Amino acid sequence: MDFFSLIISSCACFPFVFSSYIGFNEWESLIPLMITSFFSFIITLRLIPIIKKTTRAAGLYGKDLNKNNPKEIPEALGIVPATAYLVTLILTQLFYASDKNSQVQYNSAAFSVCFMIFLGFADDVLNLRWRYKLLLPTIASFPLIVAYSGTTLIIVPEPLRIYLGKAIELGILYKIYMMMLAVFCTNAINIYAGVNGIEAGQSLVIASAALTHNFIEIFLHISDDIYKQHLISVSLLLPFLMSTLALLKYNKYPSKVFVGDTYCYFAGMTFAMAGILGHYSKTMLLFFIPQILNFLISVPQIFGFFECPRHRLPHYNAKEDILEPVTKHHTLINLILWIIGPTHERELVNILIILQIVSCGLAFYIRYHVSSLFY
Amino acid sequence: MDFFSLIISSCACFPFVFSSYIGFNEWESLIPLMITSFFSFIITLRLIPIIKKTTRAAGLYGKDLNKNNPKEIPEALGIVPATAYLVTLILTQLFYASDKNSQVQYNSAAFSVCFMIFLGFADDVLNLRWRYKLLLPTIASFPLIVAYSGTTLIIVPEPLRIYLGKAIELGILYKIYMMMLAVFCTNAINIYAGVNGIEAGQSLVIASAALTHNFIEIFLHISDDIYKQHLISVSLLLPFLMSTLALLKYNKYPSKVFVGDTYCYFAGMTFAMAGILGHYSKTMLLFFIPQILNFLISVPQIFGFFECPRHRLPHYNAKEDILEPVTKHHTLINLILWIIGPTHERELVNILIILQIVSCGLAFYIRYHVSSLFY
Repeated sequence: MDFFSLIISSCACFPFVFSSYIGFNEWESLIPLMITSFFSFIITLRLIPIIKKTTRAAGLYGKDLNKNNPKEIPEALGIVPATAYLVTLILTQLFYASDKNSQVQYNSAAFSVCFMIFLGFADDVLNLRWRYKLLLPTIASFPLIVAYSGTTLIIVPEPLRIYLGKAIELGILYKIYMMMLAVFCTNAINIYAGVNGIEAGQSLVIASAALTHNFIEIFLHISDDIYKQHLISVSLLLPFLMSTLALLKYNKYPSKVFVGDTYCYFAGMTFAMAGILGHYSKTMLLFFIPQILNFLISVPQIFGFFECPRHRLPHYNAKEDILEPVTKHHTLINLILWIIGPTHERELVNILIILQIVSCGLAFYIRYHVSSLFY
Repeated sequence: MDFFSLIISSCACFPFVFSSYIGFNEWESLIPLMITSFFSFIITLRLIPIIKKTTRAAGLYGKDLNKNNPKEIPEALGIVPATAYLVTLILTQLFYASDKNSQVQYNSAAFSVCFMIFLGFADDVLNLRWRYKLLLPTIASFPLIVAYSGTTLIIVPEPLRIYLGKAIELGILYKIYMMMLAVFCTNAINIYAGVNGIEAGQSLVIASAALTHNFIEIFLHISDDIYKQHLISVSLLLPFLMSTLALLKYNKYPSKVFVGDTYCYFAGMTFAMAGILGHYSKTMLLFFIPQILNFLISVPQIFGFFECPRHRLPHYNAKEDILEPVTKHHTLINLILWIIGPTHERELVNILIILQIVSCGLAFYIRYHVSSLFY
């Protein structure tokens, strides 16, 4: 077992081990969800080898540019975990959507995610233009925004209360914020890419962190509303975690399949939905620290202040089989390579995943320690 | 203006002209829907010429086999009306989903349709196997079945009441019936194909007939429940009708684009949803008379009693530019060609559309006259 599989499976187990440790004992109510999630794991594991031949035959493949003698790797395999996930979400509803309100939440979330998966797959096949990439997640987030029935009130941090009062009613601004969150999440996963297993790997770590946060809040049971919100978030994230785990078996270094925009959009929208319906969107953003850094570094190129090449990969040194930073490509991956020096792709992915784990640890520190100083 | 455009635009106008004639005056409440539907018409009209280049570049094209010097025609253009439709459905919700119950219905219907569009597009790109084509619509119909809150009671026809009583509670059987309806509708549109404009043309006629039925029921206003159910059906069908009308501009003989499985699945699922949420699924089936005939004729080949070729087109006589029946290909199109004799493709499509119109007329006769003898 390689180091990557070891850290990834540790991450996937962490929420469960940790919540048993703190004395979480709501497992019984989660049994149907665990069964359906396991189902999404098995389906993804079994179908990827079949569907990868089909996508290859349909001309959906890409060259793995960081390799000697690059082979043609089947692309857009995100459709398998995504489809397994949607089916699981439908089945999950049978057990957890007891009233009209939760049915609305499930269906609107499922519609938003499904719309984004469709658009992601269309993007993989048709290579849509950049303007659609910003417009489409905005539209895809609409169903949830319309169905969102929660508060649009935000609590003002302690030091600002003398100016702003204890809480502010944001109304429509809050809904615009949620749409922007969906756009950010879908694109942030997508542009933090370029080495084997990073898109699915970062998503798995974020999902583990978010699930841990959910389990803590369910354990604390501060109010019935908060309890229910985090339960919905768990039922969105657990099947996602399991299908991603199966995907990673084929996507980790050296990749046998690529995940495509399909997977990145699917993952991003799932996180946005979980954050919004779980009412912890600010905490969710804290789990995105590397993605936020990557976005900030990328901004000058994305918005055209510098020339933006289509792929902003590191340079592959074929002689020594290592990756070298390209200073013209403004991404976090190149920055890290510049700091640590040229590295083998396998090592680089390990470092990026560890960075993601450390960032999520920092996020927990901020959420449960630092924020208590302000609220 | 050719004859096809004339009959199709007459069909599209029929529900409105007819409902004005009977004294329908609820137009005011439909204004937001008419605006969003018009929006889906314009978007489809404008985007098809742009996206057809993209699908062509992605290798999605097919040869038009019923032509001299067959050209490569861009395929799967159903994604354009389908995407325009989903966006319209989201916007429509803002005006018509006033309570949780109607929000559940909108979102579950939208999710089912969106899932089917995604699977249809995946089928166009990946050419999925036949077993998926039966499995996938079944799964895609699940969200609606779960959210379905209507009665599962059926009224027994007069002559059978001495054996069965006045009404039967079908329970789970009714839900299975609804799933089968979704599977039937999605495949029925798909297999009644093979000449330019028939998939979109038949769908436009069915949508017009269903809308006419909706307007009649809204006008009759037998109960508030029935009124609301038909209003939901109108809000599902009107944007569908408008986006199909725009698609037909490019899909009618001689086709400049093909609609793909994407469109057929999208159309079939939209009809199933409208029939289920509008509670008129039996009437909806009556509008499918040619599709039912085609299905019955096809059954021996589909289920493998006879050899089933991939395409069951008529034979193209290039010398005389006419289509001739192929007796080995068991479809309604070949049967009609066998009856009327070899015909030009343009004439054949006109005849098939007129057959669809006559069938829908017959359906109204059965629904409003014959059925009153039994109930």
